[in-house]
Amino acid sequence: MYECLVDGEISGRISTADRGLQYGDGLFETIMVTGGQPRFWQSHMDRLAAGCERLGIAAVPQPILLRELKTVSAGQSRCIVKIIITRGSSERDYSPSGLTQSNRVVSSHPWPEAERDPGVFGIRARVCELRLGIQPALAGIRHLNRLEQVMARAEWDDPLVHEGILLDREDHVICGVSSNIFLVYAGRLLTPRLDRCGIRGVMRAAILGAFRERCEQRRLLLDMLPEAEEVFVCSSENGILPVIRIDHWEYEIGPVTREVRQWLEEQ
Amino acid sequence: MYECLVDGEISGRISTADRGLQYGDGLFETIMVTGGQPRFWQSHMDRLAAGCERLGIAAVPQPILLRELKTVSAGQSRCIVKIIITRGSSERDYSPSGLTQSNRVVSSHPWPEAERDPGVFGIRARVCELRLGIQPALAGIRHLNRLEQVMARAEWDDPLVHEGILLDREDHVICGVSSNIFLVYAGRLLTPRLDRCGIRGVMRAAILGAFRERCEQRRLLLDMLPEAEEVFVCSSENGILPVIRIDHWEYEIGPVTREVRQWLEEQ
Repeated sequence: MYECLVDGEISGRISTADRGLQYGDGLFETIMVTGGQPRFWQSHMDRLAAGCERLGIAAVPQPILLRELKTVSAGQSRCIVKIIITRGSSERDYSPSGLTQSNRVVSSHPWPEAERDPGVFGIRARVCELRLGIQPALAGIRHLNRLEQVMARAEWDDPLVHEGILLDREDHVICGVSSNIFLVYAGRLLTPRLDRCGIRGVMRAAILGAFRERCEQRRLLLDMLPEAEEVFVCSSENGILPVIRIDHWEYEIGPVTREVRQWLEEQ
Repeated sequence: MYECLVDGEISGRISTADRGLQYGDGLFETIMVTGGQPRFWQSHMDRLAAGCERLGIAAVPQPILLRELKTVSAGQSRCIVKIIITRGSSERDYSPSGLTQSNRVVSSHPWPEAERDPGVFGIRARVCELRLGIQPALAGIRHLNRLEQVMARAEWDDPLVHEGILLDREDHVICGVSSNIFLVYAGRLLTPRLDRCGIRGVMRAAILGAFRERCEQRRLLLDMLPEAEEVFVCSSENGILPVIRIDHWEYEIGPVTREVRQWLEEQ
């Protein structure tokens, strides 16, 4: 961690009574920052606001978050800034009643350096054994209850496998452990609906916006994976990564993936 | 909070990089302490050990936890001690690989004072709208991902309603927001199986042990609730609370509930 602000003060520590620790009662965003400018800022803020509204957590004014992002990223040509908003501190009680003061942690982190550009060469993935629970009340938003992702990521330690594909209990493809997923089918871009589990990624939203006429959000079953013409995963952190293998299924890096990657480079 | 130790040091703050905050990647126990003696200590430790094993988190030796419990509860005739174990701190990465040093927070809290003894007069409950997601990988243990409980508890603010009953997505009765539930049916004690969601409470385990010949763990459907002869909820914190009303269904405080309460008083 390069630098960290807790409620605007330089600090690397937070109260043990914070409900983020106690219950995972909060939300987070990770934002790429280059030359002091956050990428997809408004999209991150929109998702954060949607999450605060869903959980009933007091929103933090955007200008405060932007100022703190600039503080922790100052002097760095590029870095990642993570913003955590929690419901604040309380005694031992699940009830959020009366908690009107959220807490926030804004920290900067090193830009990820890949030895070999996975965007160019493509990545390998695997289908995880863990199945995501179905929970519409928490689906889509980026909340702090992430044990499913931790458990799924713990399933493999082969450094050649870059991502795990997560299914729900009904064998629907949902997302990667740290990414969203798109399948190319007859030239169209299919991505899972995330109304029952998964996170609505900022990069996913940008792709859905830019290619809206060729995109479709729908239920995708596991047995559609081997039939896909192309597969890629995306995240605001890693951009768009072609998938060249999922377990024993192999894929080409095809024209649609290249087109989407080209679009992103032009942003 | 009366007193708090973080990794054995007096402190009310924890690193913002702690995975308990970042992902809810940890476990907790709340233990009643009277005269310096923890109630159901071994049962709490057994559940904590099972949780650490399930999540692959380094266990903390029991003597350390007991010593710290005694430190934070010293001089108090009775209090609650909460123990949190997290997977430790790491950079922004779900992977738990290589994390062998857990963090711990041991804090004391005031004993709950009820104005009117709910154990004697019984409590009112409601059926929550939120349905628990089904997630066998995390079921049973007391982990830090508790947004479902927060969301469920936020559904009501009527102070006369003491507990919310949680169902899963298939209309199985699972538990209370902060308790386990037992139904009395033909004199037998039925309690939900907790292999797909819910927490295996320490008080529930004690009752299952003490009344094993009359207990049954099974799937309980919502439509069995109005048919029950008696209903009670239990937790290590609140003991055994007769339920006299769930929404519009009413119950007597019956002989089985009284017997189980009597047993607990003799412990």
